[in-house]
Order: sequence, then C-alpha cells, then structure tokens
Amino acid sequence: VQVGTSHEAEYDSFLPLPERELISRIRRLSRRRIAGIATGRLIAGIGDDCAVVRIPAGHEALVTTDFSLEGVHFRREWHSPQFIGHRCLTRGLSDIAAMGGKPLAAFLSLALPAKIPQRWVDGFLEGLLKLAKQFNVPLAGGDTTQSPGKVLADIVVLGSVPTGKAVLRSGSRAGDRIYVTGDLGGAAAEVDLLYSRRGGKRTSSRRPSFVPRPRINLGRILRQRGIATAMIDISDGLSTDLSHICEESGVGAEVWVNAVPRADFHKRPVDLRSALHGGDAYELLFTAAKRTRVPAGIEGVKISAIGEITRGEGMTLVQSGGKKSPFKPQGWQYFG
Amino acid sequence: VQVGTSHEAEYDSFLPLPERELISRIRRLSRRRIAGIATGRLIAGIGDDCAVVRIPAGHEALVTTDFSLEGVHFRREWHSPQFIGHRCLTRGLSDIAAMGGKPLAAFLSLALPAKIPQRWVDGFLEGLLKLAKQFNVPLAGGDTTQSPGKVLADIVVLGSVPTGKAVLRSGSRAGDRIYVTGDLGGAAAEVDLLYSRRGGKRTSSRRPSFVPRPRINLGRILRQRGIATAMIDISDGLSTDLSHICEESGVGAEVWVNAVPRADFHKRPVDLRSALHGGDAYELLFTAAKRTRVPAGIEGVKISAIGEITRGEGMTLVQSGGKKSPFKPQGWQYFG
Repeated sequence: VQVGTSHEAEYDSFLPLPERELISRIRRLSRRRIAGIATGRLIAGIGDDCAVVRIPAGHEALVTTDFSLEGVHFRREWHSPQFIGHRCLTRGLSDIAAMGGKPLAAFLSLALPAKIPQRWVDGFLEGLLKLAKQFNVPLAGGDTTQSPGKVLADIVVLGSVPTGKAVLRSGSRAGDRIYVTGDLGGAAAEVDLLYSRRGGKRTSSRRPSFVPRPRINLGRILRQRGIATAMIDISDGLSTDLSHICEESGVGAEVWVNAVPRADFHKRPVDLRSALHGGDAYELLFTAAKRTRVPAGIEGVKISAIGEITRGEGMTLVQSGGKKSPFKPQGWQYFG
Repeated sequence: VQVGTSHEAEYDSFLPLPERELISRIRRLSRRRIAGIATGRLIAGIGDDCAVVRIPAGHEALVTTDFSLEGVHFRREWHSPQFIGHRCLTRGLSDIAAMGGKPLAAFLSLALPAKIPQRWVDGFLEGLLKLAKQFNVPLAGGDTTQSPGKVLADIVVLGSVPTGKAVLRSGSRAGDRIYVTGDLGGAAAEVDLLYSRRGGKRTSSRRPSFVPRPRINLGRILRQRGIATAMIDISDGLSTDLSHICEESGVGAEVWVNAVPRADFHKRPVDLRSALHGGDAYELLFTAAKRTRVPAGIEGVKISAIGEITRGEGMTLVQSGGKKSPFKPQGWQYFG
C-alpha cells in the first residue's frame, strides 16, 4: 500500500484514523520537494498499490531497508527532527553507496504516535526530503499508520548498478590494502558525551557537530575506476563492519592503529574507542589490490590506508611500535 | 543493512545484542527455505549492504512496503504466529498482484521485543517463508533490531511488470463494469466476532477460517488478456479501496448491493457491513470496459460483476429494488 493518493481533500475523508492530517502533510511536503526532481525514471509513485520504477538498461536493481526506531536508533531528546530524518535516509543511501550504485527512489514506512507534535513530523520530513532532493531521489511511496508506541521509521532505497559490477563484501584477497574515507568516531564521541553527561535525561534539542553524508559519488567512482575489491559502509563501527568484509571474503585483517583517521571533536581528535568501534559514521570502508594506485582523496574527501588484508581468520590491531593485539568487533550504539 | 552474514557462529559474537540468537535463527530458517528456490534472479542476497536483483529485460520494477505492527495490524492473542507471518507477506504480494506484476524478492524488516518466545518467532517465519516458497520469492534481505515495545514488521516486495503494462488505479472510465474476485467479508467478520465476544481479552491461539491468498496469477492473467482497465487489492475494505480507484481515475461508482459476493462464516453469509467495508480480504477489485468479456472465473477463483463506473464523483449503493443511497468509504480494522 502506497502513501496517500492524489486528491488530498477527498483522501482525508477516506481515512478514519487520527493520523489522517499527518498523512496529508507528508504527501503535500513530498510533492513540493519532488516537483524539482527529474522523475523520468518514476512511472508511478505515491497513489498506487506499488511504485513503478524504470531500471536503466544493462543495470541490476539494488534494494536496502533500514529501521530508524525511537529508543533504539535515536532519541527525540538528543537530536533535532531534521537530523533524525536526514540520518534515516542517510542509512539507506549509504548502503547504495557501498555497492557503488546510484539511488533511484526512496520509500518511507512511518508509524507515528497519536499525540506527536505536528512540528516534529514536519521537521523529520524536512530533513529527509532535503537530502532526497540533493541526491535527486524521489520519495516514491511507503506506508503510514499509527504507532502503538514510539516513532517507527523504515527507509527503503531502490538503486541500480551496471550488471555484474556491484562491489560486494566478498571480494577482498590477502595482500589487499584496507582504506577508509573521511574521519571516524565523531558521531559516536558526540553521543557518548551526551550519554555520559546526561545519563539519558532530556536535554535541549541541539545542532549536531557531525552530520553524516552518504558517499554516493565516492562509491560510484571507486567502482567505475575498478579500485575497490570489496566495500561496506561504516554504520555499526569500523571493527564490526570490517569483520563483515572478513567474514564474507574468508580473510583476516591487520589494522594500523595510528593510521585510523580520527575526527576532531571539541578541537581534539576523538578517543580511540570512538574511532575503532563507534557507529553512525557512514563513511566507506573498502579494500584494493596492493598494486592499485588509490588517490589520497576523491572529490574533496580524504582517503586513508589503514591496514592490510591477511590470510586466515581474525583481525589484529598493530600499534606504532609493532605490538599486536586482537581486534574484536565491538560496534556500539547508545540510544536504547 | 542486510540481515546477517554467512558464518553464523562468528556472526553471533559480532552482535552484542539480546536478539543475536533470534537473528541466527532467522538466517538459518531463511536459508533452508530458499535452498529450494530458483534464485537465478538474485545476484546477492542476505549478507551484503544491498541485495542485487536482476529485473527481466523489457520490464519495470515494482516496489511496495507494508507495515504489520502488533496492536495495529494484529494481536498475538488472536492469531497464530504462522498466520501473522503469512498475512505479513500476503500484504506485499497482494500489492504486486494488483499491478498485474510478478514478485521477484521479499525483504523483511523485523524488530522484536527482548523477551518474545523463540517459538513465536519461529512460527512467524515459518508462515512467511512457506508462502514465499509457494510463490518462488526468496527472502533477500531486510533489517533486524530490538524493538522498544511490540513486534514490528515491515515487508517490502520487489516485483516486475512488462514496461508500460502495469495496471494502475487511474485507468477506469465511465461505463466500465466493476468486478471483484472471490468472496468478501470473511476475515472481517471473524475479527469482528472475536472482538465483540472477547472484548480484546486473551483467547487461545486458533486456526483462522479465512487464510488470505495473494492473487498473483489472477492479477497477471487480467493484465495479460487486457481485461483490467484499473485494479487494486482489497486490503482496507471494498468501500475504501473502490474510493481509491474513483479518486485516481476521476470517476464515480454504483455498486449493486445484492451482487457483492459475501463469504460464508459459520455456514451463513457474512453481514453486509463486513462485505462492504471489512478489510484484510486481499481479493482483487478491478474494472473492465463494458464490451470486454470477463470470465465468471479464472483458475478456480470466482469473478463477480458488482457495479458500474459513473461520470462525476461519489459512490452510490443500489438496492435490488433500485433504491439508491450514498456509499461512503468506511474500511475498518479492529486490532488496535
């Protein structure tokens, strides 16, 4: 079931539910934002049983789904609704980036408590749709309903990639170098601070220092130039996401501690734990053959070599002095 | 983010959350069920950032998303977990059917309370995956997380339809006949009875009399033979879903009360309200040009002519004596 239909005034009377005003609002905002988007690829969107989307010839479809649940992935007390909406769509777009793909359309399933302030919903949609417009991605459908409890969102992104060219997690080989885009740990350090200072208590909505950017262009360039042998986005933390590449590729990894790029937070580099294990970075983690020339940056985003793929299983941290210690997956989130 | 990865024992240690056992179980069950499915179209599934799906040449992609939320769309006290899983996927497949499409892959976002019994989750997946196998639809990914409250599921189905051939809601013209497949009101009458008798109190899990069948083959045949000018599935009730066709097509409708096919429940036809307004039927509602020959049944499923599309707006009920009354959208659900 898609969100809404085309005649708003009539639609309202067709939905005997408390959230009918909210649905109208979603549809109105979506349409306004989509107006400026080239939607030649979208044959039918909001207002039918399914969206109909044209996949470019010679391409395969990419599909990803990601929950953004209040109390699990975010707290309304900790971030603005705009930020939460922005990050909701970022989660989906970032998965498309990690395949080297291009996003074609987004779908939002959204369940709202009966008494949520309208301005919160407006802010959430504003953040989500602003990002959608930046990447030329129409909001093509979804589902809306009343929530039995908190705010529940599930973002679906449909994308495309040239046939056979998707960059999988399984392509790493022993000897490959490990790279990461941008800096790590900023979002995690910020949430860590909020949590430790406030103990989860209400604080005024604030402007986050770290607004994640889905690395769509970067992912496509890494695929097009044949650089990445395997790729994943860092949503759960470097340690956990690198472990997924190792698992899928049947390899191990050595990570050079001092090479891991740490974000600045309050004018100092974040702590090592945030950089190695903190989630919500939405940077790309990829591997490339040792002989491949990897630029130090692409489109203004820094690329750092942080280690090497090894034979066998397990991950190791290498200190500057050469001392080695086990590197266990310990990605964490603090929103619960 | 996709559900899980390929090495189960390792994966468990990678997920420091209470639901890690549940995720393992989902992956195990999914893989066992999918083993028997022809997955040539699925290039990458569970275990990467996105699923990669091949859309057949000359086809467009269909995408639909549908929530199944405890306390909104179902109650654990009222139906078996198998039934709830079955209906969760039915909601998505039925939307594909209503476009005349073919389902290619399903994606399940599932959030579970920390203390849900494992046997409930097993039952839910059993019902969902059994239906998936019947329609040759692999569970290709999704997302899993802990729920802040009740069971939260969002089903996504990706399908395909020949380019330009999707049956939309907007194709009805004045003079078209209105048709419906199967019988209406059974599921609604059953829930109605449960609700009035039990007042929402716990009752033993029981075998429902009405197990919905997504009308995939029927929808495709109606499209292939050029019969349907517009189509929708009846998920919210005949009155509400017909109103969507009217809105999108810019037409009105007359419905002949006595022609509406009522399901038998406890050996008697259901009440008129259940047939006209009851949800969860998952039958197809379509229109066809007056001159089109519509068979009385296709593949063993009855097809009934129930009215006529009219000029202008608004829907009318026509009694057997010719008396007319307004027909308002009043689809309802009782799970809240």
